[in-house]
Amino acid sequence: MMGYKIIDDKDLAFLRQALDDGRVYAGEAISEDFSHDELGGISRMPEVMVEVLSTEEVSKVMKYAHENNIPVVIRGSGTGLVGASVPIHGGIMMNMTKMTRIKELDENNLTLTVDPGVMLMDIAKYVEERDFFYPPDPGEKTATIAGNINTNAGGMRAVKYGVTRDYVRGLELVMPNGDIMKVGGKVVKNSSGYSIKDMVCGSEGTLAVITEATLKLLPLPKKVISLLIPFPNLDMAISTVPKIIKSKAAPTAIEFMQREVILAAEQFLDKKFPDNSSDAYLLLSFDGNSTEEIERSYDKVAQLCLEEGALDVFISDTDERKQSIWSARGAFLEAVKASTTDMDECDVCVPRDRVADFIKYTHELEKQFDVRIRSFGHAGDGNLHVYVLKDDMNEEQWKKKLTDIFECMYSRARELEGVVSGEHGIGFAKRPYLFEQYDESYISLLRNIKLAFDPRNILNPGKVCQ
Amino acid sequence: MMGYKIIDDKDLAFLRQALDDGRVYAGEAISEDFSHDELGGISRMPEVMVEVLSTEEVSKVMKYAHENNIPVVIRGSGTGLVGASVPIHGGIMMNMTKMTRIKELDENNLTLTVDPGVMLMDIAKYVEERDFFYPPDPGEKTATIAGNINTNAGGMRAVKYGVTRDYVRGLELVMPNGDIMKVGGKVVKNSSGYSIKDMVCGSEGTLAVITEATLKLLPLPKKVISLLIPFPNLDMAISTVPKIIKSKAAPTAIEFMQREVILAAEQFLDKKFPDNSSDAYLLLSFDGNSTEEIERSYDKVAQLCLEEGALDVFISDTDERKQSIWSARGAFLEAVKASTTDMDECDVCVPRDRVADFIKYTHELEKQFDVRIRSFGHAGDGNLHVYVLKDDMNEEQWKKKLTDIFECMYSRARELEGVVSGEHGIGFAKRPYLFEQYDESYISLLRNIKLAFDPRNILNPGKVCQ
Repeated sequence: MMGYKIIDDKDLAFLRQALDDGRVYAGEAISEDFSHDELGGISRMPEVMVEVLSTEEVSKVMKYAHENNIPVVIRGSGTGLVGASVPIHGGIMMNMTKMTRIKELDENNLTLTVDPGVMLMDIAKYVEERDFFYPPDPGEKTATIAGNINTNAGGMRAVKYGVTRDYVRGLELVMPNGDIMKVGGKVVKNSSGYSIKDMVCGSEGTLAVITEATLKLLPLPKKVISLLIPFPNLDMAISTVPKIIKSKAAPTAIEFMQREVILAAEQFLDKKFPDNSSDAYLLLSFDGNSTEEIERSYDKVAQLCLEEGALDVFISDTDERKQSIWSARGAFLEAVKASTTDMDECDVCVPRDRVADFIKYTHELEKQFDVRIRSFGHAGDGNLHVYVLKDDMNEEQWKKKLTDIFECMYSRARELEGVVSGEHGIGFAKRPYLFEQYDESYISLLRNIKLAFDPRNILNPGKVCQ
Repeated sequence: MMGYKIIDDKDLAFLRQALDDGRVYAGEAISEDFSHDELGGISRMPEVMVEVLSTEEVSKVMKYAHENNIPVVIRGSGTGLVGASVPIHGGIMMNMTKMTRIKELDENNLTLTVDPGVMLMDIAKYVEERDFFYPPDPGEKTATIAGNINTNAGGMRAVKYGVTRDYVRGLELVMPNGDIMKVGGKVVKNSSGYSIKDMVCGSEGTLAVITEATLKLLPLPKKVISLLIPFPNLDMAISTVPKIIKSKAAPTAIEFMQREVILAAEQFLDKKFPDNSSDAYLLLSFDGNSTEEIERSYDKVAQLCLEEGALDVFISDTDERKQSIWSARGAFLEAVKASTTDMDECDVCVPRDRVADFIKYTHELEKQFDVRIRSFGHAGDGNLHVYVLKDDMNEEQWKKKLTDIFECMYSRARELEGVVSGEHGIGFAKRPYLFEQYDESYISLLRNIKLAFDPRNILNPGKVCQ
C-alpha cells in the first residue's frame, strides 16, 4: 500500500552483520507468536525479526530501514490487545525483550533507570525489595516497561497515583531516522520546549523507539489494606463509587467485579476466592504509613458502602489474603479468555460518575444481541474493560455482532463524554472508533505530528491515526 | 522578517465589528504595559490589542489572522519572565484576562472547569473554601491559569504533588486556523492517540489558544505545618536536601533562602520575618489529615537537619505564622527586583543532588564577575531561580556581564544534567541556551511539531524553538 521495500538477501546480510549472527530470524525461523498480540484478531508475520541488545544496534537498524524504506515494528512482550505491535506492512520486527538491565537506582533523586525490555513485575520486585515504590500497576505484569510507556498504561492504582506518563521522568529515544535523543532526565520540573517525552508516552511505537527509561519512584508505603465489599447487584456497587470519591477518601484502587468473572477466575486458577456468594463486588485498597492512618480512611468508606446497601465488608490485611484477592483480579482477562472460543474488548474510559450508566447499557446489549458480555475494571477511574465473547457463534455471526455491539458501545461512550481507550491504546483495531470520535481537523493534527517525527512513515505505519 | 501583513484600517474594522466596540485598542490607546512582561528586557508594542470574552471570539480572531497572515500573541497577566508574551512581530495581541468564569466544580469527578483568564489565587480560594485542593502553587498568584498551563508552572509544592501538567485533565483549544478542539476531558485515563493536551502544556502560547481548562482537584489536606530551619551557611542547608529526600520523608515543599533575600523581602513588605539571624534557611512544609501523621513525618526530618548542622527548627502551625513566612517567600522575586536597577534570571532545573554544586558555582561567579547574584527557589525539586543584578553598571557593562555569566551558568547546568528551564519557559530570551543544549535534530523536531500545529506560523512566532 505504501510501496515499502520488500526484505531481500542484501537486507538480511546487513542485519546479520550489524547484530551478530543468531539474533536475526527470517521466514520459517520466526515463531508464529510474533504475528499477533494477546487478542490475536489481527495478524501478519514480519519479514524478519531481530533481537536488539543496545541503543547503538537499534540506531543502526532504524538508520538502515530509513534509508531503504523498510517498515519497522517494535515488539515487547506482545501483551497488547489492539494490534499495535503487529507488523501489518511486514518489514522488520525489532524485539526489545533482550534489553533487560536495571541500570541505576538513584536514591538521591528517587529515580530508576532501566532498559526498555525490563518486565513490570521485575521492576516492582526490584524497587519494593529496596523499600521504594513504582506506583503504576497494570494487571499484565509480564508487559515490558517500554510497552507500558507506549500505551500509557494506567492499572489499578491510578485512582490515587495516576498513570505511567506521570512516572516517566526521562527517555532515551532512537528516532525513525536512527538519530539518538535524550528527552527529559532526572529533573523534576522541565519547561524547556515542547515535551517530546509526554508525546512519546502513549504513542504506541509510532513516533520513536524507547531505548531507556528513567522512572520516578516514591517511598514504599509501609502498609496496604484491601477491602472486598459484596453488593446485591452490580448497579448498586458501581453507583456507590462516585459517593466514595465525593467523600474525599483517597483509596489507591477501586475495582469492580461480577460473580461470573470471579467464578471464571476460580476455575482458571483452581483457587477459591475469599467469597463468591454475591452478585457483585467492589475491591478497594488503601495505603499509608500506619495502620491507624489507613483505618481512619477505610472506616469512613466501609460505613458509606454499608449505608449504600453493601452486604458486608471483608478486610484483608495479611499478605496471603491480599495475594489471593489480587492474583484473582490479575487473572480476570485470561480467565474470561479461557472461558470462550474468542473475544474482543472495549477499553473505554468515561467520567467516574458515568460508569454505572455504561455498565447498565452493556447489560442491555447482552440481552438485545443475545451474547455474553463480561466486564471488570477500574471503577475508581472510569476505565472499563468490557469483553464480548464469541462462544459458539460462527465466524460470520461473530464478526457481524461484534461490529454492531462495538458500534453501540463506543457511540454510547462518546455520549457519556468518554474516550475510546483508557489504557490499551488505539493500535490497529480501534482506529475506526478514534476516527468517529474526532473530526477531520483533529485527526489531521495527529497525522501531522506523526510526520513531524517520522517523515518517511516507516515506524509502525498504519497505526493509531493512520 | 516573515513578511507578515501590517494591520490596516480594514483589519481594525473587522476586529471592531467582531468584538463589539470598546474591546479593540490600537496605537496610542494601548498601554505601554502590553509591550513587555515582568522582567521587561524584551519589548515591542502590538499593533492592536483586543480583549476577548468567548471561545467563539477567539476563533473568529484566529481565523481572520490565519487568512490574512497576521501574527497573534496571547496575553494573560503578563507575569512571564522570558518574553513569551511579547509581540516581537507586532500584529494582534489577544488579551485573555476578561475570560474569568469559574464554570463548574464537579464533585463526583473531582474536577474544576475554568476560563483561561482566571487567576491562580482565585482558583485556590474558590476550591479551598469548598474543601478541595489545587496543588500547583507558583509564587506569582496573579498569573492566569492558562499562563500557568502554558509554562507548565511547578511552584512550591512540586516536591510532593508534581507540576501543572499533572493537574490538567482537559483543554478546549482554538487552533491557529480558528478551529475549535476539545482535548482530554474529565476522564482520569486516556490512551486515545497522541496527547495533544500534554504537548500544549508548556508550549508558551505557540501551538494553540487555551480557551477552557478542566483541572484535577484533590481533597484538601486537613492540616499543614511549616518548618523554618536556619543553617550556618547555604551550602550546609542545601547539602541536607538530598538526605531529606533519601530519608523517604514526603514534604510538600523544600525551599531554600539566603539571609540577603529575606532582608530584601522584609524591606519590600515592611514586615518582619520570624528569624533573620542566620545566613541560610530551609523552609519545609508537610501536609496530611492529622497532626500526629504530620508530626511523625517532620520529626524525622527535623532530627536529620539538626544532625546535619541546623542551628534550630522553628515550627509554624498557626495560620498567621505560616502566612508571614510564605508571603515573604512569595515576595522574593519582587523584593529582589526592587533592590536593584534591573535584573535577569536563570531558572535551570538540575537533579536534586546537584543543587548545592550549582549554587556554589553561582557564588564563584559572583566573585569572578564582581556582581550581585541572588538566588532562591525549590531545593526539593532542583529548580533554582538565580537573579543577576545590574545595580550601578552601565547598560554596556551590564549586557556584557550578563551574557558572560549566563553562558557560564547554563553551561554548568548542562554539565550537571540539568535543563534550561524548570518552569519559567524559553520564550524569546532563553532560546540561545535551548539551542546550545540540544542538537540540530532535536531542534528540528520541535520546529516540525510547531508547524504541525501552526503551518502558517502565525501564533506567537519567533518563540521557544524558532
